[in-house]
Amino acid sequence: MKKLKNITVIGLGLLGGSITQASLRAFSGVKVIGFTHRASTRRKARAMKVASKVVDDIGESVSGAELIVLATPISTFAEIFEQIRDSLPAGCIVTDVGSTKVQPHKWASKFLPKDVHYVGSHPIAGSERRGVEFSRDDLFDGASCVLTKTGKTDTKAIERLKDFWKALGCRVSVMSPSGHDKVFAMVSHLPHLAAACLVNAASEEALGFSGSGFIDSTRIASGPVNIWSDIFLTNAENSIKGLDGLIRELGKVKETIEKSDRRGLEKFLEKAKKKRDTIIRRKFEKKGFLS
Amino acid sequence: MKKLKNITVIGLGLLGGSITQASLRAFSGVKVIGFTHRASTRRKARAMKVASKVVDDIGESVSGAELIVLATPISTFAEIFEQIRDSLPAGCIVTDVGSTKVQPHKWASKFLPKDVHYVGSHPIAGSERRGVEFSRDDLFDGASCVLTKTGKTDTKAIERLKDFWKALGCRVSVMSPSGHDKVFAMVSHLPHLAAACLVNAASEEALGFSGSGFIDSTRIASGPVNIWSDIFLTNAENSIKGLDGLIRELGKVKETIEKSDRRGLEKFLEKAKKKRDTIIRRKFEKKGFLS
Repeated sequence: MKKLKNITVIGLGLLGGSITQASLRAFSGVKVIGFTHRASTRRKARAMKVASKVVDDIGESVSGAELIVLATPISTFAEIFEQIRDSLPAGCIVTDVGSTKVQPHKWASKFLPKDVHYVGSHPIAGSERRGVEFSRDDLFDGASCVLTKTGKTDTKAIERLKDFWKALGCRVSVMSPSGHDKVFAMVSHLPHLAAACLVNAASEEALGFSGSGFIDSTRIASGPVNIWSDIFLTNAENSIKGLDGLIRELGKVKETIEKSDRRGLEKFLEKAKKKRDTIIRRKFEKKGFLS
Repeated sequence: MKKLKNITVIGLGLLGGSITQASLRAFSGVKVIGFTHRASTRRKARAMKVASKVVDDIGESVSGAELIVLATPISTFAEIFEQIRDSLPAGCIVTDVGSTKVQPHKWASKFLPKDVHYVGSHPIAGSERRGVEFSRDDLFDGASCVLTKTGKTDTKAIERLKDFWKALGCRVSVMSPSGHDKVFAMVSHLPHLAAACLVNAASEEALGFSGSGFIDSTRIASGPVNIWSDIFLTNAENSIKGLDGLIRELGKVKETIEKSDRRGLEKFLEKAKKKRDTIIRRKFEKKGFLS
């Protein structure tokens, strides 16, 4: 496969800044351009040397790129596709790192020229922190990355993007955008909503007594609000289905407690424990789903 | 204050085994007796030298004790109180480490002799693991411990028990049993139910894609089923109220997503983020509620 020589990352936050640094580490002789519209972020990014070059002109930033990665909030993608469409080199690959994938695919097919290849990416990395100051070149070491494709997606572009994320340290799998959004509604978006609801349901007084259980189970509620609002609004149907399912489960367990039904309660908790212990065991055994 | 010389711990799991070991570390010359009805646990506990003596006769285990700590599941307390009541030395302190406190106080006042002092304890320590093999002498270093008392509780017994937990490394606070159970329903029992429901709501396929967000937010769902069943059943009213509150919050956030109400959604998430960030900041500043 042809070695990547020119990569552009749009948006230099925790993920964007980590992608530029990890790319510099992974590909010798690569030129990595970082774009961000914020002057203060450009200053920090230059001081940290996260990219070969940090620029303030988005069209210029992509004009020589083989691979363009959007690492901005999902709600900015449509506008950015419009801003860069006339500057994109024919045959380049465009991807993004958004946590929902149906909507980015829709925007890509609406706004991007037919001679560039869009593939979705969702690296499962990051934290509740944000900002280029937390970015690092090893953020993707051992992380999973899901690529999303439709029937129209160019096969070579998928393979090339797979190799890119593997070089950054990821284990890569490929799914359909709708399959992705269904799965991640359950394992990522719903837990976030539950965490926010747990915090909001608790009084300030009670929160003062929180131990590591509460702290861990609500960690994700400290994530960036705009990023997560984008996620829920671009995966609304699955999020709502997820909430309905969670409310159903809460109702079930409530019934066992109301009835003092110890056997039913134990069965419910046992089922959850077994399912979760299985995930953990599989993670430890590294027999994950990922190829 | 008189130095503790004789401590008995009933039940040698993660907590019980850690209390015996931490007591041996904290009090020079102390005699710590551990009781457990399981022969296999007695063997392990002896091999690990978790106590000065590990015995199989519960009456004998308490007959010389100044402090008796129950570290068994809450549902066993009534029976144990009955089993030990005739062997308890006058003036001794009886406590337990159960995660709910109203019911233990009720059983204590029903089953314990009038000349012994019952005070509730809830050390906020431990993990989703169980068993004496995970016990250690530093489990309580830096942990919080809530003591519970009623209007009738002996003041000197409270002070003595405070000093005990402080010597084991805890920061100690005192509450009423009902105040305790309300607060911990919100910050401990409800998050556990939510975690179990999140796991049960997710398909096996989706679980294969879980990242650190899901793993952390559901960690507590791997806790011991019998212990947690006891907790929910002995704090049923508050657990049910908590579930109702959580279901209400989930309904609120669902409405913002259904209506594509970005402003409402952001306000909801922002509120949760601010509340949680405040807990974390206070924890780091060590300006907790605890004295």
